[in-house]
Amino acid sequence: METRPPQAAVSWKQKAYSIIFESDTPAGRAFDIALLWAILLSVVVVMLESVRSINAAYGPYLRAVEWGFTVLFLIEYIARLVVVRRPLTYALSLLGIIDFLSIAPTLISLVLPGSQYLLTIRTLRLLRVFRIFKLGRFVGEGEFIVRALKASRYKILVFLTAVLTLVVVIGTLMYVVEGGQNGFTSIPKSIYWAIVTLTTVGYGDISPVTVLGQSLASVLMILGYAIIAVPTGIVSAQMATPTVPASAPPAFKQVICHVCQATEHRPEAEYCWRCGEKL
Amino acid sequence: METRPPQAAVSWKQKAYSIIFESDTPAGRAFDIALLWAILLSVVVVMLESVRSINAAYGPYLRAVEWGFTVLFLIEYIARLVVVRRPLTYALSLLGIIDFLSIAPTLISLVLPGSQYLLTIRTLRLLRVFRIFKLGRFVGEGEFIVRALKASRYKILVFLTAVLTLVVVIGTLMYVVEGGQNGFTSIPKSIYWAIVTLTTVGYGDISPVTVLGQSLASVLMILGYAIIAVPTGIVSAQMATPTVPASAPPAFKQVICHVCQATEHRPEAEYCWRCGEKL
Amino acid sequence: METRPPQAAVSWKQKAYSIIFESDTPAGRAFDIALLWAILLSVVVVMLESVRSINAAYGPYLRAVEWGFTVLFLIEYIARLVVVRRPLTYALSLLGIIDFLSIAPTLISLVLPGSQYLLTIRTLRLLRVFRIFKLGRFVGEGEFIVRALKASRYKILVFLTAVLTLVVVIGTLMYVVEGGQNGFTSIPKSIYWAIVTLTTVGYGDISPVTVLGQSLASVLMILGYAIIAVPTGIVSAQMATPTVPASAPPAFKQVICHVCQATEHRPEAEYCWRCGEKL
Amino acid sequence: METRPPQAAVSWKQKAYSIIFESDTPAGRAFDIALLWAILLSVVVVMLESVRSINAAYGPYLRAVEWGFTVLFLIEYIARLVVVRRPLTYALSLLGIIDFLSIAPTLISLVLPGSQYLLTIRTLRLLRVFRIFKLGRFVGEGEFIVRALKASRYKILVFLTAVLTLVVVIGTLMYVVEGGQNGFTSIPKSIYWAIVTLTTVGYGDISPVTVLGQSLASVLMILGYAIIAVPTGIVSAQMATPTVPASAPPAFKQVICHVCQATEHRPEAEYCWRCGEKL
Repeated sequence: METRPPQAAVSWKQKAYSIIFESDTPAGRAFDIALLWAILLSVVVVMLESVRSINAAYGPYLRAVEWGFTVLFLIEYIARLVVVRRPLTYALSLLGIIDFLSIAPTLISLVLPGSQYLLTIRTLRLLRVFRIFKLGRFVGEGEFIVRALKASRYKILVFLTAVLTLVVVIGTLMYVVEGGQNGFTSIPKSIYWAIVTLTTVGYGDISPVTVLGQSLASVLMILGYAIIAVPTGIVSAQMATPTVPASAPPAFKQVICHVCQATEHRPEAEYCWRCGEKL
Repeated sequence: METRPPQAAVSWKQKAYSIIFESDTPAGRAFDIALLWAILLSVVVVMLESVRSINAAYGPYLRAVEWGFTVLFLIEYIARLVVVRRPLTYALSLLGIIDFLSIAPTLISLVLPGSQYLLTIRTLRLLRVFRIFKLGRFVGEGEFIVRALKASRYKILVFLTAVLTLVVVIGTLMYVVEGGQNGFTSIPKSIYWAIVTLTTVGYGDISPVTVLGQSLASVLMILGYAIIAVPTGIVSAQMATPTVPASAPPAFKQVICHVCQATEHRPEAEYCWRCGEKL
Repeated sequence: METRPPQAAVSWKQKAYSIIFESDTPAGRAFDIALLWAILLSVVVVMLESVRSINAAYGPYLRAVEWGFTVLFLIEYIARLVVVRRPLTYALSLLGIIDFLSIAPTLISLVLPGSQYLLTIRTLRLLRVFRIFKLGRFVGEGEFIVRALKASRYKILVFLTAVLTLVVVIGTLMYVVEGGQNGFTSIPKSIYWAIVTLTTVGYGDISPVTVLGQSLASVLMILGYAIIAVPTGIVSAQMATPTVPASAPPAFKQVICHVCQATEHRPEAEYCWRCGEKL
Repeated sequence: METRPPQAAVSWKQKAYSIIFESDTPAGRAFDIALLWAILLSVVVVMLESVRSINAAYGPYLRAVEWGFTVLFLIEYIARLVVVRRPLTYALSLLGIIDFLSIAPTLISLVLPGSQYLLTIRTLRLLRVFRIFKLGRFVGEGEFIVRALKASRYKILVFLTAVLTLVVVIGTLMYVVEGGQNGFTSIPKSIYWAIVTLTTVGYGDISPVTVLGQSLASVLMILGYAIIAVPTGIVSAQMATPTVPASAPPAFKQVICHVCQATEHRPEAEYCWRCGEKL
């Protein structure tokens, strides 16, 4: 709960702003929860539309509901642009782009049928849900995971490079060993097989037939089985290590920028350190 | 072994109670072990009944035995209701509900054939087995695992939300890329495929055929392979951290409530802190 | 290198003993390495015999070689019985039983054809290989792993019980939901499917077809994906914890009993603390 | 940035050397980045050539480009041999061998068609990419992973021996139990199946059919599911342990030998401690 200096005349724009972008007033919270349900429902509608039997029976109704949601989200998008102090900053922020992508496919589907299924990208809007609990535990825990992954990013990159090199080399060997008649029709396809095997997914759409191929595959599997210990070890070790000194975090203001979702503002900050929006 | 004040006249109800609900007297222990075997046997009978060839040969006998066990468990259930101090509390506790669900399907199967297979829910009654060793190591170790999972619950929830969002977005992309003729007949089915792939299960009932689809699948697999490090890291780090100060645990009374299975009672407690049952 | 009191007359039995059971003299080491190769070769011969095309071409030769190895191992087994101080203790020790099982199948195959393939149990004899490096790092590291697993055994048991209960309950649900026509022909088979899915093996020989079944399977997969964090966390946490005080281990004598492979003898020990054999 | 004594006359050889082998001058960096792209492009060309439809349409062009790259790499290889102080040391170093293997297959393919696909071994040359960032984080992080794996190598070896023994024994049992008609046609094939199952890959090309076989497979799966905790635990514990005292690492010179890629040179070192090359 940030303390806000008492102000004589709060404009309608500021009121609308606090409803749409914030969630610490009853109205703002109600707006966020309504939005959440609208997103969930619209995603379900898009999913149902893709099921042939349901589409055959209720297709027109579903498409009508979908258009309804799109119009709703379009209005919401325009409202956000109007009430925010810096419309361009919002439009180009990650959340702004997701908001836009959540409307675009319906319009595009007029020209390019089928693209409306991309509307499930609306699921990404659910990320806003965390804002409702913004002072709660979720943000902190989510940040803990992200911080641990960030701290391990160079290790993970080195690991991924090693994995990709291994997959290319073994994929090629399998292409030479097994050949096209056993499903290894090209090197890219063999690399795909190597990834399927190393990650222990193992569809079985392509599998080695020759003795040499099965031996090579066995080596790859045992490698994949042992190698998985590496990323796990990296992240475990990172998470077990106290990364931030205990005194530092409470020194930040418990506020999230509504435009760019930046956190870790200085206690006395009045503007976002990243995009300059008023906090 | 809780010390109990010597009492002149112990009613039959109290005796029955100590046999049925407790396991620190020889009679109580024998009852528990007999119950354990009855549960195991009855589950095996239900399983055998589901195998066609065995059902054809011994069906009527198996059904007779099953009815025998159900009557037995029904008597036991009624006995529990009679001897317990607060029948309603027991009936609505987790164990009470499981006890009831272990009898219900046989009765329902008179109306709805096939539902008797749900009797394998009796397996859950085996959880009582831990009570027999109640002062032993198992409860402590089980609680250690549960406590570590509980402490990580917000992190795991954030992780699951991220995984579900990823699965919905990639599932939809695959539906658009591969289309119905390659098995991706609807968005829900594509999401099912994405879960099968991300978790590295990889049945192979649906697998990508186009080059673009296989590339996208490769990305998803490597993500799934790397992402598994996150829950593992969370739980490992949690378990490596001493969560409870070393002096606290022995301060609890080594007793488990027989109605709601609550532990961590105060040393001087005579009644369960959760359901009020006499300890 | 244990120091051994100089002895005037070393009997032939003691000499044979030091060759067969020990590996710190050149002769003993040579014997062990020869044995190692004999085991490896005999296992390869058994494997080759099972390949139809090779069996058709070289069957009689392979069987002759197999009999040769069996006679060799029989002689070795008798020699061990003769030179050891307590033949019965050796015969009933783990290694003694494995030694016996490595000969038995060839003899049994005279009566029961096919049982000779069980000779690959000889692979277990390779465990002796660690003795050659007995003062080296391997024993210590192997013991480290075993100790960590032992310390976690109650936690792992609790975990396995939970997994088995889950698998029985979900397997039954799938049997009721999917039914025989989709491959879930009986409850035991459905439980087998649930294990295949939970462990993320995913053969695809049985896979859900109905929407409800696929949803249930998705839940099981995500559970399996998250649950794997538990055993990993247990073992990681155990291994990260220093279990033995740093001063204790060097206090043991660096010797392994040749009969029962016991370690951790007192520095001044002359006889094995477990089986009483002379060290 | 190593400080280098000012030198009056820098020969053309030294200049070429600093361009080809080093990357801290603008020319050297440009050379490395050009090389990187050449490697990537040549690997893509080889991959495309293996795709039948592309090969049919553009085969001759792709082969021409491939020959172009091979000539380029041949010139580069000769240049390296000329400018380096000890050509033989370079030719026999790991990187020198990889450089040679990146050219050889094209030449061999004149005699043995098909071997040109082995050119994807050029991917290994990408390892040089790390040199560009040599003073950066990557080398350090990569070394951290390698050091953790090295420190765990005995534990991992013991683990792999145990896994291989298990796989041989269970593979044989399955061969005896299931037999040839269910796909388990020989012991080596059954061992291949056991590896596919234990590592949770699960292609499904071979899967047990009999009840006994499925039970045995279930045991193997649950073992595989639990066993994976061991390597993960080993590596996690190793990574969580600070292996090198905090004061030691900065005591090394921040330089990598361009011939053998050795690091950890003494601060005052002028020659590589491993191959004697001038640093």
